[in-house]
Amino acid sequence: MNTAPAPMPPAYDSGDTAWLLASTAMVLLMTPGLAFFYGGMVRTRHVLMMIKMSFAALAFGTLVWWMIGYTLAFGPDVGGAGIIGNLDHVFMNDIGLTTLTGHIPTYVYSTFQMGFAVITVALISGSIADRATMKGWLVFVVLWLLIVYVPLAHWVFDQDGWIVKHLGALDFAGGLPVELNSGVAGLAVALVLRAPRDFARREERPNNIPLVVIGAALLWFGWFGFNSGSALSDQGTAAAAFINTQLGAAGAMVTWPLVEKWRTGRVTTMGVVSSAVAGMVAITPACGEIDTLGAVVTGLVVGAVSAYAITLKYRFGVDDTLDVVGVHGVGGFIGLIMVGLFATARISGKKGLFEGGGWSLLGKQLVAIVAVIAFSFVLTWIIAKAVDLTVGFRAREEYDNVPGEDEERAYDFRTAEKLEDVVDAGRRGRPARSDEELVREITALLRNRER
Amino acid sequence: MNTAPAPMPPAYDSGDTAWLLASTAMVLLMTPGLAFFYGGMVRTRHVLMMIKMSFAALAFGTLVWWMIGYTLAFGPDVGGAGIIGNLDHVFMNDIGLTTLTGHIPTYVYSTFQMGFAVITVALISGSIADRATMKGWLVFVVLWLLIVYVPLAHWVFDQDGWIVKHLGALDFAGGLPVELNSGVAGLAVALVLRAPRDFARREERPNNIPLVVIGAALLWFGWFGFNSGSALSDQGTAAAAFINTQLGAAGAMVTWPLVEKWRTGRVTTMGVVSSAVAGMVAITPACGEIDTLGAVVTGLVVGAVSAYAITLKYRFGVDDTLDVVGVHGVGGFIGLIMVGLFATARISGKKGLFEGGGWSLLGKQLVAIVAVIAFSFVLTWIIAKAVDLTVGFRAREEYDNVPGEDEERAYDFRTAEKLEDVVDAGRRGRPARSDEELVREITALLRNRER
Amino acid sequence: MNTAPAPMPPAYDSGDTAWLLASTAMVLLMTPGLAFFYGGMVRTRHVLMMIKMSFAALAFGTLVWWMIGYTLAFGPDVGGAGIIGNLDHVFMNDIGLTTLTGHIPTYVYSTFQMGFAVITVALISGSIADRATMKGWLVFVVLWLLIVYVPLAHWVFDQDGWIVKHLGALDFAGGLPVELNSGVAGLAVALVLRAPRDFARREERPNNIPLVVIGAALLWFGWFGFNSGSALSDQGTAAAAFINTQLGAAGAMVTWPLVEKWRTGRVTTMGVVSSAVAGMVAITPACGEIDTLGAVVTGLVVGAVSAYAITLKYRFGVDDTLDVVGVHGVGGFIGLIMVGLFATARISGKKGLFEGGGWSLLGKQLVAIVAVIAFSFVLTWIIAKAVDLTVGFRAREEYDNVPGEDEERAYDFRTAEKLEDVVDAGRRGRPARSDEELVREITALLRNRER
Repeated sequence: MNTAPAPMPPAYDSGDTAWLLASTAMVLLMTPGLAFFYGGMVRTRHVLMMIKMSFAALAFGTLVWWMIGYTLAFGPDVGGAGIIGNLDHVFMNDIGLTTLTGHIPTYVYSTFQMGFAVITVALISGSIADRATMKGWLVFVVLWLLIVYVPLAHWVFDQDGWIVKHLGALDFAGGLPVELNSGVAGLAVALVLRAPRDFARREERPNNIPLVVIGAALLWFGWFGFNSGSALSDQGTAAAAFINTQLGAAGAMVTWPLVEKWRTGRVTTMGVVSSAVAGMVAITPACGEIDTLGAVVTGLVVGAVSAYAITLKYRFGVDDTLDVVGVHGVGGFIGLIMVGLFATARISGKKGLFEGGGWSLLGKQLVAIVAVIAFSFVLTWIIAKAVDLTVGFRAREEYDNVPGEDEERAYDFRTAEKLEDVVDAGRRGRPARSDEELVREITALLRNRER
Repeated sequence: MNTAPAPMPPAYDSGDTAWLLASTAMVLLMTPGLAFFYGGMVRTRHVLMMIKMSFAALAFGTLVWWMIGYTLAFGPDVGGAGIIGNLDHVFMNDIGLTTLTGHIPTYVYSTFQMGFAVITVALISGSIADRATMKGWLVFVVLWLLIVYVPLAHWVFDQDGWIVKHLGALDFAGGLPVELNSGVAGLAVALVLRAPRDFARREERPNNIPLVVIGAALLWFGWFGFNSGSALSDQGTAAAAFINTQLGAAGAMVTWPLVEKWRTGRVTTMGVVSSAVAGMVAITPACGEIDTLGAVVTGLVVGAVSAYAITLKYRFGVDDTLDVVGVHGVGGFIGLIMVGLFATARISGKKGLFEGGGWSLLGKQLVAIVAVIAFSFVLTWIIAKAVDLTVGFRAREEYDNVPGEDEERAYDFRTAEKLEDVVDAGRRGRPARSDEELVREITALLRNRER
Repeated sequence: MNTAPAPMPPAYDSGDTAWLLASTAMVLLMTPGLAFFYGGMVRTRHVLMMIKMSFAALAFGTLVWWMIGYTLAFGPDVGGAGIIGNLDHVFMNDIGLTTLTGHIPTYVYSTFQMGFAVITVALISGSIADRATMKGWLVFVVLWLLIVYVPLAHWVFDQDGWIVKHLGALDFAGGLPVELNSGVAGLAVALVLRAPRDFARREERPNNIPLVVIGAALLWFGWFGFNSGSALSDQGTAAAAFINTQLGAAGAMVTWPLVEKWRTGRVTTMGVVSSAVAGMVAITPACGEIDTLGAVVTGLVVGAVSAYAITLKYRFGVDDTLDVVGVHGVGGFIGLIMVGLFATARISGKKGLFEGGGWSLLGKQLVAIVAVIAFSFVLTWIIAKAVDLTVGFRAREEYDNVPGEDEERAYDFRTAEKLEDVVDAGRRGRPARSDEELVREITALLRNRER
């Protein structure tokens, strides 16, 4: 309020920055959105754990990014190999009010990318819902961000990263480091924290589908910032990325429910919102490279494939609890391939197979995909295993997080109070009994009856 | 990330575009907001249906708009009559990175308007909550958007539309095509899908008022993008539209609760949030035409009138379940009249009756209102009837959507688990029974008791 | 849509305005966010009251601000003393489309600041959850905004206010008028509406923690607009304020849970989200004055202190129900002190103690803190007492707001319907009984059993 802003360098663009500030806030809202998306999908006894896992990613992801993540991802490249950044900007060192990245202040760019790091690691929590320890998760978040996420961010998002600079693959908003990476990492962690054979029987049921939909709505809203903001401007490419995001979601919302209807005879709300998410996953790498027709096709394809893919976990016995692999892994893969097929000179700088560009781009996309899968899977597996063997990652008991009598409960609703009102109609003024007490009383009645 | 953006034409304004990008994301968040607003208002057994109806509007509205809706609404006018656009831009044909509408990329404008189309049709679902089939709804969404919404959008939002160009009526952000139209269409559909005589007795009760309020909050937030973004810039008119939106809501939040208090003796949360919505409905056509005093008066008037109007459905036996007619129809009407009274040269280009402009503008507003009511009512009635007679629109049974044993449930809370914890205190380790099983067990006890 | 915007003066900046429009929408979303944050924290029977208290602040705060609050806070200073503005702009008089405040339209600035006024008074409702009358609250909102908030806004936010102009203390986004003020006022009101001795026993338990987290998520999102938007531009200072907001939240999310773990042995979801809020409270005055290291330290300090501070209410017997004093009062105080310690020439115009600026700034911060505490406490106490003695503020009965049989219920869930389904399996077609009826029936069975 009361300080004169420093004069900005000529490259600074006020309109671009306005959109990036808004985009950054939107991206940072995605992780709470994910907390609701995941939190609503599990049993009541696991809601709070899912929420805390996402919020832990927010807290520790933010600090890790500030301390060293940003400079490893976006600091000057070490040796020109495009593998990792150097340590020039630890603790945001040497970044000031007038430091720019392209046309926008680096403070904004760094926070925008911080949001990407945070949600990527938070996504993994879905593959181990209900069987991770919080201590293990905290250690995993820090290690995984530094060892797996940060190099991938450098490879793809930094202008000197080898995938963008030397290989020349296209990934507009993070199909590789965010979507494919989280899906593959989810698979690795799910394998390390493998559940007992009968996992299908004890499967999570959504405790609160409206909460899932609230999460999906916030993810959708934030995704416009995620994808369109990745243009780092508000010019035409940002506009194309924006409309393509919406079209990708809509396309998937047609085919997923059709597959679901065909397989089970009905269309669930869970299927509808999951399909929207899958559509946005797949459009993430493609949104600024393809035109609107390509975006719709991408959505239609990923909707059908992901709806089928999420059923495979039962066949392979991989307890990817909330379908991180089937949605983010498979969706990211499809989107990256679509870039190789549909990239068009009208939107992107390059041409895919269907636009007369030949097989070249598609080959580069495949190389990038294979590299990211291998890198992410191997390192994530090692990290998860190391965490499990040291501080402990796999919860020992099936329902280790079940809150006891004195612990936090997600919901504490009126049912018991209503019962009480009726039971107690004549005894007003008496101190209120807790739900717990009332239930105990009623159950005592029931039990006496039983004998 | 890795493509050089095309150079934008000189008319492009980066600041305007930044606001329109943010506005578009906000507008697209309104339909999920509506899903929660409506979803919380019905019985638990209908929550998911209401959510799915809004999300179906999102998916199919998006695709219909992309395919043909946009070009019919905003393509070059056919014959100069201002009735409909031509097919030049089917599938966004000929729209590229540098195509502009005014100062902003057409991709952004088209997506902004897509959000208008989607929420308008989604609004109608409130008038038939609990008695529409999903199959009928899907067909209705597509037909209604093309036959009713798209022409009205051309009449009012396109610079060559007859209402704005030939008639000269004023409608800043969609009082005619969005609010009045959805209200009138809601009436027509409610009449076609008329409920049995005793509808008042089986009336919906809100299952989750906090969910209603979450919906209202997202609608409110999105409405700033809807109204202020309709300036297609971030200059003074956008600013006036923004503050007037807030003032309209606040005004209605004074009078509606007063009417409610006077009629029933208390002020409900449902009344408070409905009044905010009604205020924003009425201010929608007026927000960029009148000054702040006019905005407050508009809110005060619509709050009082709508609070009364929603009680009329019982008198007339029209089962407008969630008050689409009383809020959007009546509110849109009032707002359009207010423009004729309060339009001021200080904000708008024209003057209303109270600003010395005579009866001229008010007359034009009335002509536009009558035209839209007639067009919307007749065509919507025909479409709804046709859908009902072919694929079926009216659910055959009262509660056709009641989930059966094996279907999706909106909530699955702790009560049963708590009961179980107590009942089972000594039997830990046993596989968890489902809520369903437990309730069955307890009820069996109760039934045995009964006999 | 159809009016030509007036040409804006040269000082107008389109990019700045785009960010301020978005920021304003985000700030206005914070009060509904607060409604959920508070609403989820109380017993089910008080949810709707908490929501209505926040929405009442929205309605009446908006209108009071428009009528006279804005001009008293930001109108030309009376007599140059920096105490209060004059009445030039009552009802936004003389503000037009092209009136600017700095680089942005005054309509936007006024609405941005309106959001600050609204949330500040709404915050106070947390300190008297469950024992205020709505009538008393409505009168309090109006009086408190005019007598306490508006002068403080003038002192700190107006360029001619004595704290910013004559004293030279720094408060970037409202540590004094918003955070410290609401915390101190919460204390005063809690004392006036003192609860009975045994308040700890009847303490509120959160009825819906996911709702609390939804509220926290919206607060977090809106806070980016609140803090970064306070730069009134989207240049480097806005960027620094943005990243510092995130870092402050993250820092507090480390120490608060540590304190909680140390004291109680576990980390609650309530603790996690409260810590994020506390971090953002403390960073509010500091975000545009200190660098990222200072922001992290601010977060770490406030997390530890507030986690401890909220336990003091039991010792002092002050029934600050939802910890307004411990979070906003203490957090605001810490943040203001941090400015005196960490303000740096690299971000702010001034230097704090640790940056070589000596004790001067810290002394000014302390003077401002003492002035605001004294002003807010004394006047708020008098207002609350006057309201209580006239229209009545303290609810007479412990649970005066308990909804009776015929009143609004926050939730109406499936449990009873499920029971009914089972009980009634053979009796389909019968009109549905209400939850109430069913519960009565079942309870009757239980009661008969009892005898």
